[in-house]
Amino acid sequence: MASEFDLIYRYLAHLGRAPHVTLSVGDDAATLGLSAGCELVVSTDTILEGRHFPEETLPEYVGYRAVAAAVSDLAAMAARPIAMTLALTIPDADELWMHGFANGVAQAVDAFKLPLVGGDLTRGALSITVTVMGEVALGRAVKREGAKVGDQIAVTGTLGDAAAGLAIIGGALAGESHVDWALAEQLEQRFFKPLPKLDWAPWLAAHASSAIDISDGLLADLSHIARASGVRLAIDSHAVPLSKALQALPGFSPLEFALKGGDDYELAFTAPADVTLPLGATRIGFVEAGTGVECAGVDSEQSGYDHFL
Amino acid sequence: MASEFDLIYRYLAHLGRAPHVTLSVGDDAATLGLSAGCELVVSTDTILEGRHFPEETLPEYVGYRAVAAAVSDLAAMAARPIAMTLALTIPDADELWMHGFANGVAQAVDAFKLPLVGGDLTRGALSITVTVMGEVALGRAVKREGAKVGDQIAVTGTLGDAAAGLAIIGGALAGESHVDWALAEQLEQRFFKPLPKLDWAPWLAAHASSAIDISDGLLADLSHIARASGVRLAIDSHAVPLSKALQALPGFSPLEFALKGGDDYELAFTAPADVTLPLGATRIGFVEAGTGVECAGVDSEQSGYDHFL
Repeated sequence: MASEFDLIYRYLAHLGRAPHVTLSVGDDAATLGLSAGCELVVSTDTILEGRHFPEETLPEYVGYRAVAAAVSDLAAMAARPIAMTLALTIPDADELWMHGFANGVAQAVDAFKLPLVGGDLTRGALSITVTVMGEVALGRAVKREGAKVGDQIAVTGTLGDAAAGLAIIGGALAGESHVDWALAEQLEQRFFKPLPKLDWAPWLAAHASSAIDISDGLLADLSHIARASGVRLAIDSHAVPLSKALQALPGFSPLEFALKGGDDYELAFTAPADVTLPLGATRIGFVEAGTGVECAGVDSEQSGYDHFL
Repeated sequence: MASEFDLIYRYLAHLGRAPHVTLSVGDDAATLGLSAGCELVVSTDTILEGRHFPEETLPEYVGYRAVAAAVSDLAAMAARPIAMTLALTIPDADELWMHGFANGVAQAVDAFKLPLVGGDLTRGALSITVTVMGEVALGRAVKREGAKVGDQIAVTGTLGDAAAGLAIIGGALAGESHVDWALAEQLEQRFFKPLPKLDWAPWLAAHASSAIDISDGLLADLSHIARASGVRLAIDSHAVPLSKALQALPGFSPLEFALKGGDDYELAFTAPADVTLPLGATRIGFVEAGTGVECAGVDSEQSGYDHFL
């Protein structure tokens, strides 16, 4: 059985190198330089086995996804990632699991340019808390408030894929015949390996009036923008972008997943109506005076996943 | 049963106000300004019920202590606190527990001038992860490396009190007669309400060659300085400062607690031998050429608490 320090050093300590990291894993704390004229952006997310990912998920996916879920909040603020810390609680010092987990974290470190500069390792029920830090030009973070009447509402990518993938992982297609399993696998990968929209930061900072990442479900997340901005968001459910994979699979209601499923880590944002949306974004509605979210044919009271409801 | 968002807003959202916090709890991330000429200092700590604090610990103490343990790492770097995030996992949405916990966190926010700017609330086995952020003048963080042959070794306060307090909480004095319970209570309070040595930052930044907070036990923590600095730390166990309360209680070995007990969150540091130590610090030895920690009459191989040993 390896000791705590051995495990940390063997698998994670080398992931903390970057030019702006002046001190990484191995001291009481890490030190980091911010770019001139920038402020710090910080967010913390916890994922738990059996709640945020199924038991027996490959440890590679657990590690990658924990980081992806957290860094998505930086994307939603139009921030540039600078570093993260990782608090890992595991039932035992299982080297095989740690090796896979660290591989997943390493993939995320590379993909998001997010060095791992510190953390804690404790023994208990499996739990991963990631704190991501980013930077943004002073006062230029894109918030949930700021949506204005007349703005267009848009989302990136396609929605519902990850939630459908999770349902498939849980056996939702077990009774179906004529399933295209290659498409099903695509959806599962959207759940296991989400790609936070960090590339959108420059465009959002220049054009968006508000933004949020879609982690609880489109309707639930839009309701946060509506409340913070003091407006009503009216969306057209027919305009919500759906992937071919999601529409092709039998026995599913694609729109249900797209409106209520989180886990895609796409972005929803508002921008002035005369702004041309770039490739990869789809207009789904407009901001109106009022409160709440209106979606043709869907109960506006429906909300996303709330851990305590 | 209150919803997750209700719980967060009711009890914790008001703790995030400070002049340098430009956006606090309630968006995808928080934003913070650093002082000019400073770099960011960051550390993450997890505490678990039954492992880092006894079951049935008052929730006020759990909240306070989770923050104190984390902020102690900023003290050890000679950093000034700027903000924290809190990831809280609780078995159920127990309002009475949350109320007490939030009170404890609020006490820590006040005591350490550490606004709570974000976090996550999930449902599972009780676990608290705190990420603290601080700032320090560029390149002026005090690290574990830097101890030089000939330097004096010193500690703040008295050692072993919190570990003895924890033993008392666990019933260590149950069989003793003639116990001064007021003294016993003092030691228990050292465990429940530790006071991280943030006030030492200016002195450490000016004089210390290395520093660490004593969270795993004096010998274990000094061994980190010895390894990082490539030196041998020779301490005189008779010089280790012990409180009157710890020495007065029957049936205890005060030195055992002082050398191996963590949880006091005092600081150990090295400084040139000609530097006069301020009130509240005690010289306990000198830095020599070599490796490891030598302590007269104590096996140098003894180490602190390691979660996986």
